[in-house]
Amino acid sequence: MDGENPASARFSFEVRGRDAATGARLGVLRTAHGEIPTPVFMPVGTAGTVKALPHEWLEALDARVILANTYHLYLRPGPERISRIGGLHRLISWPRAILTDSGGYQIFSHRELRRIEEEGVRFQSHLDGSSHFLTPESVMDIQRVLGSDIAMVLDDCTPYPCGHPDAEISMELSTRWARRCAVHWSRDCHEARALFGIVQGSTFADLRTRSAEALLDLGFEGFAVGGLSVGEPKSAMFEVLEHTLPLLPDTRPRYLMGVGTPRDIVRAVALGVDMFDCVLPTRNARNGCLFTSEGRLLIKNAAFADDERPPDPDCTCLTCRRYSRAYLRHLYVSGEYLSATLNTMHNVTFYLDMMGKIREAIASKSFGKWLERMEKWPE
Amino acid sequence: MDGENPASARFSFEVRGRDAATGARLGVLRTAHGEIPTPVFMPVGTAGTVKALPHEWLEALDARVILANTYHLYLRPGPERISRIGGLHRLISWPRAILTDSGGYQIFSHRELRRIEEEGVRFQSHLDGSSHFLTPESVMDIQRVLGSDIAMVLDDCTPYPCGHPDAEISMELSTRWARRCAVHWSRDCHEARALFGIVQGSTFADLRTRSAEALLDLGFEGFAVGGLSVGEPKSAMFEVLEHTLPLLPDTRPRYLMGVGTPRDIVRAVALGVDMFDCVLPTRNARNGCLFTSEGRLLIKNAAFADDERPPDPDCTCLTCRRYSRAYLRHLYVSGEYLSATLNTMHNVTFYLDMMGKIREAIASKSFGKWLERMEKWPE
Repeated sequence: MDGENPASARFSFEVRGRDAATGARLGVLRTAHGEIPTPVFMPVGTAGTVKALPHEWLEALDARVILANTYHLYLRPGPERISRIGGLHRLISWPRAILTDSGGYQIFSHRELRRIEEEGVRFQSHLDGSSHFLTPESVMDIQRVLGSDIAMVLDDCTPYPCGHPDAEISMELSTRWARRCAVHWSRDCHEARALFGIVQGSTFADLRTRSAEALLDLGFEGFAVGGLSVGEPKSAMFEVLEHTLPLLPDTRPRYLMGVGTPRDIVRAVALGVDMFDCVLPTRNARNGCLFTSEGRLLIKNAAFADDERPPDPDCTCLTCRRYSRAYLRHLYVSGEYLSATLNTMHNVTFYLDMMGKIREAIASKSFGKWLERMEKWPE
Repeated sequence: MDGENPASARFSFEVRGRDAATGARLGVLRTAHGEIPTPVFMPVGTAGTVKALPHEWLEALDARVILANTYHLYLRPGPERISRIGGLHRLISWPRAILTDSGGYQIFSHRELRRIEEEGVRFQSHLDGSSHFLTPESVMDIQRVLGSDIAMVLDDCTPYPCGHPDAEISMELSTRWARRCAVHWSRDCHEARALFGIVQGSTFADLRTRSAEALLDLGFEGFAVGGLSVGEPKSAMFEVLEHTLPLLPDTRPRYLMGVGTPRDIVRAVALGVDMFDCVLPTRNARNGCLFTSEGRLLIKNAAFADDERPPDPDCTCLTCRRYSRAYLRHLYVSGEYLSATLNTMHNVTFYLDMMGKIREAIASKSFGKWLERMEKWPE
């Protein structure tokens, strides 16, 4: 059921094309659960489901990879159960690739419930208050049990704003943890699966440099830029990216965690990012905010009550092909499940379509135009 | 978009076969939105959506008709908006048949918010407390605006238990309202659409007889048995059915409102009922209760946490073909949207498959066996 294909069982990344004017690049990630053309957006499926969206519809969109969350899955249903079932792919019946984040960000988000120590992180479950202790090693073991195609190191995510001394302490801890992750992962290394390092260092160029350099020595299959989109101004985020991305090896995939708006994504692609995840399309969908070619559309707006147009006339998603703004508004104000499902289908389509167009634009040497157009997209 | 087909625009019902030993019969309802083989179960789509189930999946199940609710749609989005859009089929993008109940039952359910008068019913909206007054005539007008393929008269639904004097008063009011509905409906009669009368009279045979006889004179296209499944014992419900159904014309469809469990349905088919609706499969699905060939399955049960079997090994629905009890339990305890969607898909499939098997059994002269088998189904 997990569809793992031993014939293509070695994880790899290949750069297949480049934009002449920017850092944008075309590539392909090969995993035991299929190939993933990059740049790619990974819909967020925290607990093993992209909220409100049936797997069948994700497949109809040709989503090649979803992101699941080690922290949430560790707490529920727990690694023992997932192990007995034979891994996450099998539990959730998803035959394509899965990236799991390490839980660092989630533990960081529940600030009042956790304590960082050198050995690892102590925290209380947000579900039942039970006490837990995760280490870099145990997080590797959990992701191994999950059978993640791409696993992430455990990191300490620095809040924003943060002074240089605190950011340095945090980055150095993340670096030591990354080393422990790499060592532990390599002891029982499944060559079909990849472990990515995460560059930290808040908004400080010197710390980002030191973080990246330390990670480069550890032989990761890919590199993420973490600790962004945590409240800093956009300009600061892009400064960090412009500084950090050139430090990473050209031959390895680059993943910008938790970002972002359509415009953020296109800009980051131009800087050389290959992989993205973000709750924006799915969470906004549930809140009635639809991404369209003309900007955001708040479906609860009374103006849509009699509006027979689809959410986005330029969109060919299942929702736009069949349903009107009037119906989607009715479903939203009525609190119906179908509202979340149809809105999510549209927003995830918007993001995946955008990535497809980005890839086409890079391939056809017209990425510059794309970048210009998205600069006009009303955020 | 509403797919109305003028060529088949006359509503009709035809009995096509009968069981030799029971009152069960095979038939077909012809509507402007398609043919409906009977006996039929109509999934409940109160607000214009079968909760948590995409239209696409209903169509994949070949659901030919859904039930929507006049009361709910009157309050939201309101008949003016539905009129501007061009009817309910168009608003919700559902090209197949729709039966609308009149709202009598819903107003009855909000007992503290309503007052019954001869002219009609005064009530406060359960949504915003606003005051409303509906009459038999206005309820006909609303269902005309909705474009219901099958409309229901406004009735006064008697609670259980109820003394004979009160039940008689209520039944007589329902009868006067039914007459007003029939008169008003006939003034602007769309021959593609049907109006059904509703037999009332609580558990009293004499009242049921008088109600049925009065309705017969009013030229309804079909007859419902109402006021059941409101708390009375099963035996009382079946006594009413056994008494009432023979009073109704053999050539017209018979609809048992709001019923019921799988066993109830099979038994009622044996008495000659053609049409059913009930929230049981959809509401139970959202509460994690799945109907299976071996009885009910409460998916939150810890025993299912490691259970890789589908909910029902005998079922071929989308849910059972792909997903395990372990995953469905995980989705349920995690409060995920997909839980409601996958569970609803299964339960609605269970009901529609059962109706298909009932029709096959009647056609192949094996309905008696079916009846026996369902008597063993553990309710």
